[in-house]
Amino acid sequence: MRKRVVIIGGGFGGLTAAKKFHNTDFDVLLIDKTNHHLFQPLLYQVATAALSPGDISVPIRWILRKSKNITVILGEAVKVDSTNNKLLLKDGEEIEYDYLIIAAGARHSYFGNNDWENYAPGLKTLEDAINIREKMLLAFEKAERKFDKEDVSKYMTFVIVGGGPTGVEIAGAIAEISKKTLMRDFRKINTKKTRIILVEGTDRILNTYDKKLSLRAKEDLEKLGVEVNLNSMVSKIEKNKIFFGNNVIETCNIIWAAGNTASPLLVSLKTKLDRAGRVIVNKYCSIDESPNIFVIGDAANFQEDEHPLPGIAPVAVQQGKYVADLIKKENNSLNKKPFKYVDKGTMATIGKAKAIAQIKKLKLTGFIAWFFWGFVHILFLINFRNKYKVMAEWIWYYFSNKNGVRLITKSNNKL
Amino acid sequence: MRKRVVIIGGGFGGLTAAKKFHNTDFDVLLIDKTNHHLFQPLLYQVATAALSPGDISVPIRWILRKSKNITVILGEAVKVDSTNNKLLLKDGEEIEYDYLIIAAGARHSYFGNNDWENYAPGLKTLEDAINIREKMLLAFEKAERKFDKEDVSKYMTFVIVGGGPTGVEIAGAIAEISKKTLMRDFRKINTKKTRIILVEGTDRILNTYDKKLSLRAKEDLEKLGVEVNLNSMVSKIEKNKIFFGNNVIETCNIIWAAGNTASPLLVSLKTKLDRAGRVIVNKYCSIDESPNIFVIGDAANFQEDEHPLPGIAPVAVQQGKYVADLIKKENNSLNKKPFKYVDKGTMATIGKAKAIAQIKKLKLTGFIAWFFWGFVHILFLINFRNKYKVMAEWIWYYFSNKNGVRLITKSNNKL
Repeated sequence: MRKRVVIIGGGFGGLTAAKKFHNTDFDVLLIDKTNHHLFQPLLYQVATAALSPGDISVPIRWILRKSKNITVILGEAVKVDSTNNKLLLKDGEEIEYDYLIIAAGARHSYFGNNDWENYAPGLKTLEDAINIREKMLLAFEKAERKFDKEDVSKYMTFVIVGGGPTGVEIAGAIAEISKKTLMRDFRKINTKKTRIILVEGTDRILNTYDKKLSLRAKEDLEKLGVEVNLNSMVSKIEKNKIFFGNNVIETCNIIWAAGNTASPLLVSLKTKLDRAGRVIVNKYCSIDESPNIFVIGDAANFQEDEHPLPGIAPVAVQQGKYVADLIKKENNSLNKKPFKYVDKGTMATIGKAKAIAQIKKLKLTGFIAWFFWGFVHILFLINFRNKYKVMAEWIWYYFSNKNGVRLITKSNNKL
Repeated sequence: MRKRVVIIGGGFGGLTAAKKFHNTDFDVLLIDKTNHHLFQPLLYQVATAALSPGDISVPIRWILRKSKNITVILGEAVKVDSTNNKLLLKDGEEIEYDYLIIAAGARHSYFGNNDWENYAPGLKTLEDAINIREKMLLAFEKAERKFDKEDVSKYMTFVIVGGGPTGVEIAGAIAEISKKTLMRDFRKINTKKTRIILVEGTDRILNTYDKKLSLRAKEDLEKLGVEVNLNSMVSKIEKNKIFFGNNVIETCNIIWAAGNTASPLLVSLKTKLDRAGRVIVNKYCSIDESPNIFVIGDAANFQEDEHPLPGIAPVAVQQGKYVADLIKKENNSLNKKPFKYVDKGTMATIGKAKAIAQIKKLKLTGFIAWFFWGFVHILFLINFRNKYKVMAEWIWYYFSNKNGVRLITKSNNKL
């Protein structure tokens, strides 16, 4: 009898695993909350109006259209019944599995202060990105119509919480759009005076990178006009206010890029979770209680050298391949080799011709790192069509300083 | 003293008028409810997932960035006080004008049945287009998950009300996406079996065109698998049901492309309106009561040969130029020449390599008309960048049969 593999999530991990089952003897079902695979490393460019949502996302069922043994459904998994090998969907449907691959990703975490989300949205989905984009553009529109100086400064101050890659990339992009792209568009406000503050709790930004690269990134950001506040812990967020102990910044634009929390679905596995809610998996990316359940990507805490692997695309992709191969060999416990992550390097971009990259012992900065960053990201964009479009956008942007997709489409949050 | 010109609306009419004041001695204020100029003739392509919102829209303030005498604000005009030459915005701000150009466009009209809007959305704004796109894509997703045949057929039936250019273009595009693009993407449903019904109240579609062209368009639609129901008047719309007298069609997908109604703002002018709520303007595109108020584009009823001019972009553009020139000559009543519309032809597209065009006595159909349609639309797309992108999309689409932007981004209306 054909075995049934159920995959939760069509991100880098889940999609890679699914592709590995292309026209095999397995019946595969992929479930995702959205209808598209998202190229998450470029999501900040949608949030900052450089790219269109369609440039970085592709319908999952289109990617898998030729794999007749794979079915894709739009749905939300809410509970795993590991005793009976069943999965429960939000709409009540029960789905049986022989193997379950959980690649459900992560949401942002507010460290227990969930009410902060109303004032400090995070960036994980296309919807998040569009909301941030509209809020940013509306802030300038509102500033243009205010005559009260305090109000104007509130609208023209952006605080980004979290000095990881996402926070750095958003801060750099907002600096570029406000200080270059929008410069000539307004009559009453001077968009060059936009304040952009990047807040980090530890003593350096991009702290998974080499110290020298962190420092260079900070300098690059400061050149773009971003204020970088290190050792700053957020104590409270209210409407238009963010507190750091006794200090307060008045701003209508707070973006949260600080913490992640894994999907609540994972709790139903009744296995060990770490503080961020991720499943602590064994060396086979599985859980000891149910060897036919695998957890990969941002939903998993895979320990290597006593540290969890980082929540980046290459880890998810490699784990996706690994577990699919394991299942195809019927998860045979005698020959099983543990998962081993091959680190091919990491990189982060700060702005035009500004980036950092760390590839084993090699450390790159400035234009070279930025060019390399662009090259790798184009290379990995999932299908030719989007590669071509994003490249065209970037080339255009590089030479024109014009950001393209400055749209406010929603009518419910207007002036 | 510098005269103040206030323009309501950044569509074809308002934007053309504004550009005419580029660096003149007039202080110009352009007010729009959105932040972008929309290339409305291609809006149906966003609604049917062929183009991205960013492909057909440009920030108004970016277009006018070099005109230092022109200010753009995001706002909604709600009332004209013509006695005191004042305009009231929704947020309470009062704006004085010497000349007022109303280019506020139109919304769809449900002939007094405003509750129909909940079940049969129309297509005027980017937000409308995104909503229709998501509803259409979700319908197929839902059909894929239903096992009950009746439910599946409800989701896979599309009814488009109104056989004008918009209705024809939407029907043709849905036929193409369902019968060609989506064909291989699903496992349980056969998207080729999608029913698309175009409903028209009169005895032919595209009834402002020559009879032969109407007939050809109907044949072309039928070749694509669209059912065309002529002489069909909608009597009632309920959730998932549309009634034509005693007949009823069960469908979750009704799109309204039937009637227009002008902006409620026009009522406050206290002048003659036609049945569709448009201002009946004099031969100077103005109103007799207040010669310093002009109404152009879809908001106006300009009589020529005892018929109103059609609600299409060329009319709005020509009127925009005309009134701007009139104002620049200080609206001098002695030398005023009345507005004269120059008809350069009209066209409508049905599907790939299928269109009709009528240019004076010349009538085109098929591939030639379609090619011509593409050429003209690319030509008029407002800036180089979008031209280039849309052209790239179209060339890609022509050769690949893949529609690009099949995204469902909103999470609130999921399964």
